[in-house]
Amino acid sequence: MSQTRPSSIREIATKLGVSTATVSNALRGTGRVSSALAEQIRLEADRLGYVPDHTARALRTGKSNTVGLLVPNIGQPLFPAFAQAIERAAKRRGLAVLIGDSQGDPQQQEFEIRTMIARGVDALIVIPTRGTTIVPADVPVSVAVIDSVATTGNVAASDHREGGRLIARHLLELGHDQFLVLAGPENSLVARERVEGMREVFRQAGVEPALRHSDATFEAGNALGRELDLRHFTACAAAYDALAIGFAIAVRGRGCSIPEDISLTGFDDLMWAQIVSPPLTTVRQDLEAVANHALAFVAGETGTSGIFPTKLVVRQSTARPSAFAKGDINAE
Amino acid sequence: MSQTRPSSIREIATKLGVSTATVSNALRGTGRVSSALAEQIRLEADRLGYVPDHTARALRTGKSNTVGLLVPNIGQPLFPAFAQAIERAAKRRGLAVLIGDSQGDPQQQEFEIRTMIARGVDALIVIPTRGTTIVPADVPVSVAVIDSVATTGNVAASDHREGGRLIARHLLELGHDQFLVLAGPENSLVARERVEGMREVFRQAGVEPALRHSDATFEAGNALGRELDLRHFTACAAAYDALAIGFAIAVRGRGCSIPEDISLTGFDDLMWAQIVSPPLTTVRQDLEAVANHALAFVAGETGTSGIFPTKLVVRQSTARPSAFAKGDINAE
Repeated sequence: MSQTRPSSIREIATKLGVSTATVSNALRGTGRVSSALAEQIRLEADRLGYVPDHTARALRTGKSNTVGLLVPNIGQPLFPAFAQAIERAAKRRGLAVLIGDSQGDPQQQEFEIRTMIARGVDALIVIPTRGTTIVPADVPVSVAVIDSVATTGNVAASDHREGGRLIARHLLELGHDQFLVLAGPENSLVARERVEGMREVFRQAGVEPALRHSDATFEAGNALGRELDLRHFTACAAAYDALAIGFAIAVRGRGCSIPEDISLTGFDDLMWAQIVSPPLTTVRQDLEAVANHALAFVAGETGTSGIFPTKLVVRQSTARPSAFAKGDINAE
Repeated sequence: MSQTRPSSIREIATKLGVSTATVSNALRGTGRVSSALAEQIRLEADRLGYVPDHTARALRTGKSNTVGLLVPNIGQPLFPAFAQAIERAAKRRGLAVLIGDSQGDPQQQEFEIRTMIARGVDALIVIPTRGTTIVPADVPVSVAVIDSVATTGNVAASDHREGGRLIARHLLELGHDQFLVLAGPENSLVARERVEGMREVFRQAGVEPALRHSDATFEAGNALGRELDLRHFTACAAAYDALAIGFAIAVRGRGCSIPEDISLTGFDDLMWAQIVSPPLTTVRQDLEAVANHALAFVAGETGTSGIFPTKLVVRQSTARPSAFAKGDINAE
């Protein structure tokens, strides 16, 4: 560790002629401190090498000021992005975040929860592993579950169903009428909400999409893209970006062009949706809003659950269906 | 949390007529237990709903059996991959892992280290944020630093310099002779090792590459790809996949084809190296070996530092230089 000169809020307050509460608020981003004064306080804190002494505070108050965040699988790029949003929301409240990874395993999830509690976190934010339920009464600290509106005890979630509707409406507006839905895992409530939103809109238009369930991974999408008979579809809507991207790479290998032969959509707007060719039309979650609500809940600032809108992001993987292309897709 | 019936190693041992030590070894993957017996023990443990009771053990021994892992930035895809390798190595030893994110900020790194220690981790594994040094003597628990052989106190690292040599030799063998190196941040010891390895080989061939420093991000690579005059280069070697991919997308926007107009290489072999078009030639780190050595160090199984070989992964972004293409690259 580099050397940090011990310093204090009092020193900064004395130097600038303000109260210690004002300094504390400015450094945490809480309370009403003018942005000019807050900036002056932060500059002075930086100059003095001040680092908020959470450890000392924990000892005084018996609280650790630490939130445990449990993600289902740190290897899936949505969850590091979620973790960053949680970290920003925690930082604004002067809280530390420790991350645990359930590694897609319900037993590991339990072990992580017990580890977090044994390490004295004040609260837990849990994005549950598929097929598991978090019962807040079983956990001795405040818990916020982030998943879907259909999840037991959900505290903060994106409106996944509305996201599904946005995708379906976009594809219908382009003129598509034969849909393949890569629906993801059957036991994922998030995937189910997304797919239900799509089906709702498709059905209103008199169309029943073909559904294929699979894991939510790049590899699963790739396998489906290699195996499926695509002749009957003008568009494919996946419940996850990873599925869509695996699918895109496999169908390209079969000589099928996106969007000329088949339009394709994902879900989540991860970094890789922008780097694949063609860039992927998808739905973006407002991770900041979801994260902030979960933090507000465990910090006691709100007692209600929040559902947050999603946004359609149109890129080059979707276009009007080609009248001529369908016969050629499987002509390898 | 789902209900787990309290159960014990003794119960499994009695049931199968083996010693409790054998059961313990089988469940941790340690000791010499035949794979057939280990499988039988794991099945029985699953049937009984057994979960290793680390919390109880921590209370008995005064140890937490928890390792804190500090990553420089969880948003950069290398670090979730590293975290997963650390988790696997920890699981084999019956240890829990809590992850802290320094968010690219030296002050945050100090705060995370203090949070981890206040939460009672037995040991720390730190991948340092650029420009920082971890002094083990300043930290009251065992620390393993993962960075580069040039880093103070480094315990486990890939041979980044040799990785640079592999890339340079590959490009020279293809017949390239005019090199642009996207060298990454000047204060990154890892980037410096990678670039030094490249330069060493290029110089032996009598070529001095052009160096451009920048942040290690997709955005930085993209900006360089938009701005640089590429007429004089047949190949571009980036110190990070993210830099290479940002660069690839920008130069494609300028009508430049990879590898026809310019060959391109990255470093790390992250997931996205496989999904970009064309797939990226890069260097893969053996994350499992690095992670396992770091865990072995903090677990007291070894006292030495380990440097691990890297591997060249040749994909479609590199090819022989085209004799005709150079004049056209900037002819937008």
